[in-house]
Amino acid sequence: GAGADNDLYINQAIVFIEDAIQYRSINHRVDSKSLWLYRWYYSRTCQWILSLTITVILALAFVEEPSSLTITSDVRYRLPAWNPPCGLMESVELLCFLVFVVDVSVKSYLIGWKEFWKNKWLMAYILTLIVSLADWIVSLSFFCKESVRIRRILRPFFLLQNSSMMKKTLKSINSTLPEMASVLLLLAVHLSLFTMFAMLLFARTKDNQQDKEWVVYFRNLPDSLTSLLVLLTTANNPDVMIPAYSKNRAYSIFFILFTVLGNLFLMNLLTAIIYNQFRGYLLKSVQSSLFRRRLGIRAAFEVLSSLKETPASAQQSFVSVGALLQVLQKAEMDSRCKQAIMRSLKMCSCDQLSAAQFQKLFEELDKDAIKQHPSSPEYQSHFMQKVQFAFGHPYFGYLGNVVALANIISICVVLVIDADKQPSERDDFFLGAINCFFILYYLLEMLLKILAMGLKRYLSYPSNRFDGLLTVILLILEIATFAVYGFPHPGWRPEFMGLLSLWDMVRLVNMLIVFRFLRIIPNMKFMALVVTTLLDLVKNLRAFAGILAVVFYAFAITGIMLFKGAVVPLGNTRKKNVILWCSAQVELIYCFLFVLSVHLICRWAKIYFVAWWLISSVIWVNLFVALLLENFIHKWDRRCQRESLSDIEYQRTVELMFRDVLEEPTEEELMEKLHQHPHLHLCR
Amino acid sequence: GAGADNDLYINQAIVFIEDAIQYRSINHRVDSKSLWLYRWYYSRTCQWILSLTITVILALAFVEEPSSLTITSDVRYRLPAWNPPCGLMESVELLCFLVFVVDVSVKSYLIGWKEFWKNKWLMAYILTLIVSLADWIVSLSFFCKESVRIRRILRPFFLLQNSSMMKKTLKSINSTLPEMASVLLLLAVHLSLFTMFAMLLFARTKDNQQDKEWVVYFRNLPDSLTSLLVLLTTANNPDVMIPAYSKNRAYSIFFILFTVLGNLFLMNLLTAIIYNQFRGYLLKSVQSSLFRRRLGIRAAFEVLSSLKETPASAQQSFVSVGALLQVLQKAEMDSRCKQAIMRSLKMCSCDQLSAAQFQKLFEELDKDAIKQHPSSPEYQSHFMQKVQFAFGHPYFGYLGNVVALANIISICVVLVIDADKQPSERDDFFLGAINCFFILYYLLEMLLKILAMGLKRYLSYPSNRFDGLLTVILLILEIATFAVYGFPHPGWRPEFMGLLSLWDMVRLVNMLIVFRFLRIIPNMKFMALVVTTLLDLVKNLRAFAGILAVVFYAFAITGIMLFKGAVVPLGNTRKKNVILWCSAQVELIYCFLFVLSVHLICRWAKIYFVAWWLISSVIWVNLFVALLLENFIHKWDRRCQRESLSDIEYQRTVELMFRDVLEEPTEEELMEKLHQHPHLHLCR
Repeated sequence: GAGADNDLYINQAIVFIEDAIQYRSINHRVDSKSLWLYRWYYSRTCQWILSLTITVILALAFVEEPSSLTITSDVRYRLPAWNPPCGLMESVELLCFLVFVVDVSVKSYLIGWKEFWKNKWLMAYILTLIVSLADWIVSLSFFCKESVRIRRILRPFFLLQNSSMMKKTLKSINSTLPEMASVLLLLAVHLSLFTMFAMLLFARTKDNQQDKEWVVYFRNLPDSLTSLLVLLTTANNPDVMIPAYSKNRAYSIFFILFTVLGNLFLMNLLTAIIYNQFRGYLLKSVQSSLFRRRLGIRAAFEVLSSLKETPASAQQSFVSVGALLQVLQKAEMDSRCKQAIMRSLKMCSCDQLSAAQFQKLFEELDKDAIKQHPSSPEYQSHFMQKVQFAFGHPYFGYLGNVVALANIISICVVLVIDADKQPSERDDFFLGAINCFFILYYLLEMLLKILAMGLKRYLSYPSNRFDGLLTVILLILEIATFAVYGFPHPGWRPEFMGLLSLWDMVRLVNMLIVFRFLRIIPNMKFMALVVTTLLDLVKNLRAFAGILAVVFYAFAITGIMLFKGAVVPLGNTRKKNVILWCSAQVELIYCFLFVLSVHLICRWAKIYFVAWWLISSVIWVNLFVALLLENFIHKWDRRCQRESLSDIEYQRTVELMFRDVLEEPTEEELMEKLHQHPHLHLCR
Repeated sequence: GAGADNDLYINQAIVFIEDAIQYRSINHRVDSKSLWLYRWYYSRTCQWILSLTITVILALAFVEEPSSLTITSDVRYRLPAWNPPCGLMESVELLCFLVFVVDVSVKSYLIGWKEFWKNKWLMAYILTLIVSLADWIVSLSFFCKESVRIRRILRPFFLLQNSSMMKKTLKSINSTLPEMASVLLLLAVHLSLFTMFAMLLFARTKDNQQDKEWVVYFRNLPDSLTSLLVLLTTANNPDVMIPAYSKNRAYSIFFILFTVLGNLFLMNLLTAIIYNQFRGYLLKSVQSSLFRRRLGIRAAFEVLSSLKETPASAQQSFVSVGALLQVLQKAEMDSRCKQAIMRSLKMCSCDQLSAAQFQKLFEELDKDAIKQHPSSPEYQSHFMQKVQFAFGHPYFGYLGNVVALANIISICVVLVIDADKQPSERDDFFLGAINCFFILYYLLEMLLKILAMGLKRYLSYPSNRFDGLLTVILLILEIATFAVYGFPHPGWRPEFMGLLSLWDMVRLVNMLIVFRFLRIIPNMKFMALVVTTLLDLVKNLRAFAGILAVVFYAFAITGIMLFKGAVVPLGNTRKKNVILWCSAQVELIYCFLFVLSVHLICRWAKIYFVAWWLISSVIWVNLFVALLLENFIHKWDRRCQRESLSDIEYQRTVELMFRDVLEEPTEEELMEKLHQHPHLHLCR
């Protein structure tokens, strides 16, 4: 019936608008049941359960058998890690797999069969699940005693497929690969030519005294290759050339040439290539998000305009305000935006909305929340007004900064004075006294500011929240210290009174004061620019960090599987350190240089670490530099346009940063895309 | 008289056109005598003498007293350096100073008094000369026994002031300094906060077993600062955190946070800032060169148009072709350009030239020499034509590359096989035989190519010249080897037959073959792009390299003066190496990390090396990266525009690279500039 049809249209419009808000694609099924399933799938609870499942399955590695997550990393001291019984971890894993099976089924159903066959990510998802389940069955049938577990290496895939940003970034990285491969090839040619050259140059001679260079670094092909590869990372920089250099200064030409060509030219060329490829990356991604938003809103308009209650017009389609209000009430969106749109609707005072008017209403979504700080309290008394003026003035804030600086300097002085004293000689009276004084000042400052600004206004500034929180923590720690050790007096030495953990807390107080000093940053123009760039960067880097985490996880699991037996305490300190080092799951990156220079592990390990170095250090760092350049240069250009940096708010979004260069999609593009929708069949 | 006037005008026009060709400023005196002096000063002989003088005065450091320029850098083995008698070096120095005095007088006279007072470089030049001469007198009056010689540190200034490119670059760097200083300040804040934090975190405890971290790296404030500064250079990367890490894994968070913030963010921010500042640098510099050229030509037109023989026209000024021909004949310029301009003049077949026509004639100067390769010889015999076709075909070149690759691989195989053998066990027959075979092939290839292409055409390709030269050298070395050792036979071991230097030559043959392999580069598209970018970069980097050399020289002289007594052979190997290292004048940069980590030299030396690290490693490397990005991205964009990379000629100039984005100066700009000329007074 018409009523059922109308309900369907309203529901479709609600979902399309929610898609627009979340920048989601609108290419999903649009019948009533599917819409209900779709809203359920994208509900907060469901998405939260999915994220939790991914976290759990990734976290399993920390408690599973070859893990080494203990407080100390020293194999001599550390306690044996907890070993869960067979079946416990496996049941948790099975639960996770079941959630993923539901996830992939719902996703596949919602996009429809036709689309499913085009979607490689979904197919890979299903394949991964099948392999993982098969491996899980094998695992159980061996009573968890099998040595290789493929499903562990596949785990990060679940993280990858769940984030559209990461998939997009991966696509971008993928398109840079051919050029990166060229430079890497060039690097390989460079390396191998110089290796041959080195082997010819530092050949074994009759005079054994003379060929120190040969014995240590260029004994055979793998050794030479390794020496020069490590030289490329500058880790063995002067060492490798010293024997040759002390024989004849001219040998240094070889090493300088190698370093300049390899490190200065080729490595930076990689940066240039990646930067060149990613120059437009952010803009393009923001542009496509904008397109999705406009498309969602347009789709909502189209379905609403085909509602039966609307009088059909020959030229233009219209949407009734009533239908829109109905949709708005049911759609999930930011309450501020909803209210703003409602307000505009009332102000407009018309019954029908054209496509342009409809689109314009929803531009509220693109706007940033302009933060209104609550107003200060209005005092009646003349004295209170003066107090309010004095302590609400920016100069009072500057005074606080000066005091924080003085605090830092005094801690520094105490540290320098106490540096070489034995703990028994040390007198902590001075440090205790200044801590006490400064914490009292901070407390007073906080109270006066709250008095002048009112609690609500005070808390609305992030810098104040940061300050206040630290002050309260400092106060609690200080009171706890006094309660245990009494007030500071000459010869005060809290650490000799038994409770070491509280003495640690006094040190902690001072560390927190170091942090408190950071509040001066927003007061300095350039620093503020740098900090906001960095914060923006962190936002934009999430996808890259995610991909790095995925690679990292896969590498760590592979590493654990490969070098399981290698973690044995040895006598030699240097080697021991290396092993300690490698046993940590997280610090693989630091491990690499060590391993290569000490020649500890077999050839396969070398290849493993070179691959890790290339991916983490070379490629990822260059990606990072490229993004930083992109962000910073854009910011810088903008700063030159608008000189007022005083009102920096930290909630700028990437979309806002690019607003002035974004292109609005045209009506034709939107309609063409709508007509290509696999499930929605527009009447016209 | 009119004739004298006309001569003056002609001479002015000649000088202006020469200025235009050399991109020189035209703001100099223009009377007859000054013009003669000006042409004399900028004649090749004079400029050559000036360059020679600068080279000599800079090279003096290598033979003067505290120099250590010997073959070996090992203080135990090296012979005492030659010690010139007092007065010899000083006389050479005085000669140089006299040349500089003449130089500065001529320069000052030519630009005129009014301009002289505005020119800070000239004033600094005079000041430097006065100080140097005073120091020279002091030196002589002490019979060269005085310890401090200020004039040595001032020497690189003479190099700096002689190059307009370097002065321009220095100005650019100067304008970036405020922003660089901000980042360096941020870096300093970062470093000091983390130092305090580290000192609080790794404080001395009662348990001596536990505070390894404290003892080694954070004993007092200077030690902590040094540890973290070295961590910023990643030189002591895992070492510094291992004691703390093996105590508690959580300590690694401190180090990771420090490295990520300092190394990844702040250091790369420096790159971003410098890149941002230098983005338009190349374009701006090329644009100003273009303006100088157009201005010189316009000035020549204006003076020629005021010749008496030209009929005065009310609206437009004209130049007679005869006068221009007279100027062209006397002006010093590239003969190809001169001929091209003459040819155009004849083709035009008009008597009078307007300003636009005049300007257009000289556009020939901007054009690149289109290299015409001489044609191949035309053979009569049918057989010879077939031979010519076969060996002139590109496939024959590819075959040569394949053979070169085979040669490289065979050398590689021999090296791997012989790697661990004692020299007495080694059999050089195989290596000798393949050398013989491949060199014969190369010789044959060269001869066949010359036969097919003709000698002239063969030599017109740089790659052929490179090939041919190497082949001839290889042949000579091979013949010399055979003459001494006889032909290779099993058990052939040239090194045991007395003449070690010739055996070295056989190794040299193989090294040269490695180089020969480089000829494949132009055959690979991407490699060709990279290589041309690098070659361009080298051209553009000359000014930067000059400035680096100047800074380097000043640092090296300061270092020699500061650490004169420190170069003493010690027992400890590691320390000895450091000292060896530091005694070298050239490798200061490698020295730094060592010195800091070994805590060898006093505090002042530390500051000296930190300054050196900042300037050479941080700032200069970033400048380099910025220029590389600029060059590469421009090249890359161009490559996308025109896909044909096949006809790459290596003599592209920077001007050509930017031709499509350069703006031609307007007539008004040129005329305004001309009317501001301090010495030339145009009639109208």
